[in-house]
Amino acid sequence: MFGRLSEEEAGTLLAEKGVGRLGCVVDGGPYVVPINYHLENGSVYSHSLPGLKISALRSNPRACLQVDEIASDLQWRSVLAFGNFEEITNSTERAEVLNKLLQRHPMLTPVESTIVQDGAPPPVIVFRIRIDRITGIAEK
Amino acid sequence: MFGRLSEEEAGTLLAEKGVGRLGCVVDGGPYVVPINYHLENGSVYSHSLPGLKISALRSNPRACLQVDEIASDLQWRSVLAFGNFEEITNSTERAEVLNKLLQRHPMLTPVESTIVQDGAPPPVIVFRIRIDRITGIAEK
Repeated sequence: MFGRLSEEEAGTLLAEKGVGRLGCVVDGGPYVVPINYHLENGSVYSHSLPGLKISALRSNPRACLQVDEIASDLQWRSVLAFGNFEEITNSTERAEVLNKLLQRHPMLTPVESTIVQDGAPPPVIVFRIRIDRITGIAEK
Repeated sequence: MFGRLSEEEAGTLLAEKGVGRLGCVVDGGPYVVPINYHLENGSVYSHSLPGLKISALRSNPRACLQVDEIASDLQWRSVLAFGNFEEITNSTERAEVLNKLLQRHPMLTPVESTIVQDGAPPPVIVFRIRIDRITGIAEK
C-alpha cells in the first residue's frame, strides 16, 4: 500500500543512510548525482571535487537530497529533503566534517583522507544542505 | 580511479538497470523521485500516478534520469540521461509500454496490472523521456 511517511519516519531513514542522490538545477534543468553524506543537526554534510554540480549550486543554492531503501518494486521507502547549499570554508569546520564523513565512509579516496590528516586547503569542496523541508513516501 | 564513462558504457548501464531517480524542476528547485523504467530506442519509458512530479513535468518537460551501480564508496558507476518528458495517451501504445514495464517489473501494483489487461483509461500516466544527452562517471 502506497502512503506518506511522517516527518519523523522520513528523518530516521535520512539519518540511517549515508548515500543519496543530490538534485540541483543546471541551466534551468534538473541535475542529479550520487553523494556520500552525514546528517547532523538538521543539515546534510558532504564534499565534492569542483565541477558542474558545485558551480550550479554556487549560482542557485536550492538543492534536494533523495534517499531511499528499495527492497522490491512493492516494498520501498523514499525520502526527499530540501534545503539550501552552503559552502564550508573555515578550516577547522572543514576538518571536522571530513573526519565525520570518513568515519561513516572509511573508503573515501586518498586525496580526501590526506586533507583530513594535514588540514590542507581545497580543491575538495565541503558543504552542507541546511534542510528546511522533508517529505517521504512508501510502498509496503 | 575517477573517470568518465564513454557514451556507450553509459548507455549499457542505463539499459541493464530498471530502477533510477527521475529529476525534474518544481517551482525553480530540484525534485527527485525513484522510478521503474524500461529503455527502448533511446527513450526511457515509465509510468506514474498523478501528482507533483507529473504536474511539474507537464509545465517544464526538462527531465533527467540518474541510474547507478554502487558496490562501495570506491567502486561505483553513475549515469545521467537528459531529455524531454512526453506523455503517451494513445491507448494501444500505453498498453504496450505498460506490458513491457510489467515484464521487467513483475511486481507492479494491481491497479497497473488491471490497466494492462483491460486497456482501461488513466489515472496512471504513461510517459517517455526522449534522451538527447547521456553522461557517465565512475570510480573504480
